[in-house]
Amino acid sequence: MNRVTKLFKIKYPIIQGGMVWCSGWKLASSVSNAGGLGIIGSGSMRPLVLKEHIKKCKEATNKPFAVNLPLLYSHIEDHLNIIINEDVKIVFTSAGSPNKYTSKLKNRGIIVVHVVSSLKFAKKCEDAGVDAIVCEGFEAGGHNGIDETTSFCLIPKISDNIKLPLIAAGGIYDARSMFAAMILGAEGVQIGSRFAVCNESSAHRFFKEHVLNANEGDTILTLKEITPVRLLKNDFFTKILKAYDRKASLNELKDLLAKGRAKKGIFDGDLVEGELEIGQVSSMINKIQSAKEIINEIISEYNKIVQLKGYEIF
Amino acid sequence: MNRVTKLFKIKYPIIQGGMVWCSGWKLASSVSNAGGLGIIGSGSMRPLVLKEHIKKCKEATNKPFAVNLPLLYSHIEDHLNIIINEDVKIVFTSAGSPNKYTSKLKNRGIIVVHVVSSLKFAKKCEDAGVDAIVCEGFEAGGHNGIDETTSFCLIPKISDNIKLPLIAAGGIYDARSMFAAMILGAEGVQIGSRFAVCNESSAHRFFKEHVLNANEGDTILTLKEITPVRLLKNDFFTKILKAYDRKASLNELKDLLAKGRAKKGIFDGDLVEGELEIGQVSSMINKIQSAKEIINEIISEYNKIVQLKGYEIF
Repeated sequence: MNRVTKLFKIKYPIIQGGMVWCSGWKLASSVSNAGGLGIIGSGSMRPLVLKEHIKKCKEATNKPFAVNLPLLYSHIEDHLNIIINEDVKIVFTSAGSPNKYTSKLKNRGIIVVHVVSSLKFAKKCEDAGVDAIVCEGFEAGGHNGIDETTSFCLIPKISDNIKLPLIAAGGIYDARSMFAAMILGAEGVQIGSRFAVCNESSAHRFFKEHVLNANEGDTILTLKEITPVRLLKNDFFTKILKAYDRKASLNELKDLLAKGRAKKGIFDGDLVEGELEIGQVSSMINKIQSAKEIINEIISEYNKIVQLKGYEIF
Repeated sequence: MNRVTKLFKIKYPIIQGGMVWCSGWKLASSVSNAGGLGIIGSGSMRPLVLKEHIKKCKEATNKPFAVNLPLLYSHIEDHLNIIINEDVKIVFTSAGSPNKYTSKLKNRGIIVVHVVSSLKFAKKCEDAGVDAIVCEGFEAGGHNGIDETTSFCLIPKISDNIKLPLIAAGGIYDARSMFAAMILGAEGVQIGSRFAVCNESSAHRFFKEHVLNANEGDTILTLKEITPVRLLKNDFFTKILKAYDRKASLNELKDLLAKGRAKKGIFDGDLVEGELEIGQVSSMINKIQSAKEIINEIISEYNKIVQLKGYEIF
């Protein structure tokens, strides 16, 4: 038990990242049933779809689960009402200011966690009264911060200066990386990419197989002028590069991204025209497992390595 | 003792990165005398200057030390001859192919270590017969790889696929980050930024003080078209941005960088016009110490945390 497992009332301090087009009720409930914290990623859901996923998640697990809420999302008020009406106990907010909705959620007794990529925003979270923080390093997939701070530098920076429980994200996919994150000051880890390609992820089979084949250097953080996003390089990325070459305006870049690219890539499996959001660790992921297998494998290996007496003294 | 301390015959697996305008004989010998491996950074030295630094280093320590040799350097053949004639025992090569000089050096009984930023190049090192590898993550200061792979992803990727002793660089500055790197698969660490601002570094006082004041997000990896380099954002960096804005040619970019910028920034302390190479961890470094204090502090804390019985089992 540590502050993260206590806060969420979960067995293992492994949180499954809320990911558009990957993490519906099926993935979230599987992770929660396996002792971690599953998160429904609401960023790719219309309000009624979110409502259905929450209902199904409650039917599929009696363990705690959460909903991820990107604060810049257009249906935000509807989503908030559904989260409150459906009695969701934990909300992970991201992509926006923690000031805006934290007190509204906390007044309803909801646990609020905010995702940051810098100490500056972590301090804002503390001021806003959130219960815990996820710090997301440069290596993480999907949307990311502008400072490009990696997990090696971000985790100690935040844990040294913030008293709230800290969950590390970015570059974490196995027992070693989980232990390394804990050594650097985290009390829990958020794993995205590995769950994005697990059995229960709603991502398209083509997307999952493509991720399994990803090599080092295949992802890149791009579109920093709009909202930085890490994705696999493909034809769509070449289009982004061409847009940069012709000095496209911010609006042109937004238009380029807006055409349902993430759905196309991740959910429809269009590897050419779609936006293929995934982390740098994709180059280390080489099999599709169930969420339960992933968690059991990580925890069993983790418990072995933390108990090793073999760490050398110099 | 592990393979890194055995290979170099040193007490602690802490290597001081070879850094232009920072690591002359004074820094290298101090690190070696303190039980680590000091490295003379030859990239900023003319042949006769290098010769003098090697001679002085031998006078200042009877412990092993190394010379770093950037392979794209113009005086490379002269440097090689000096290294061989002066009976230097260990050479760290970087910025070039390990094929070119490894066998020449090894035939003279010199230990060869090559610096890489990807598994692809690590495999080339193995084929070339080097004795150990330094893997340098995206967060590292100075010259860097094009894949932008962070230490969290690079260390396990290489240690899983390469049998040679692995030294991790990038994001490492204290006991926690050293232990995290070891957990991820390294057998030693190379520390740059913290030694760049220590007493024995030949960097200008203005540069050192500026680094102590650096905050998160203050460094950036830029000039990726020529040779990616991580530096502190300043007026010189603004000039780079303006050059990009006007779609400057590669030659223009090279000219911009070539004007003794690194010397100006690091050695002359020109914080406006100089190139201020440093790693992301600069935001965590807040005091100027001696090399010995740094090593003693890291090792003493490291030995404490590796012996902790408090790592939680889940």
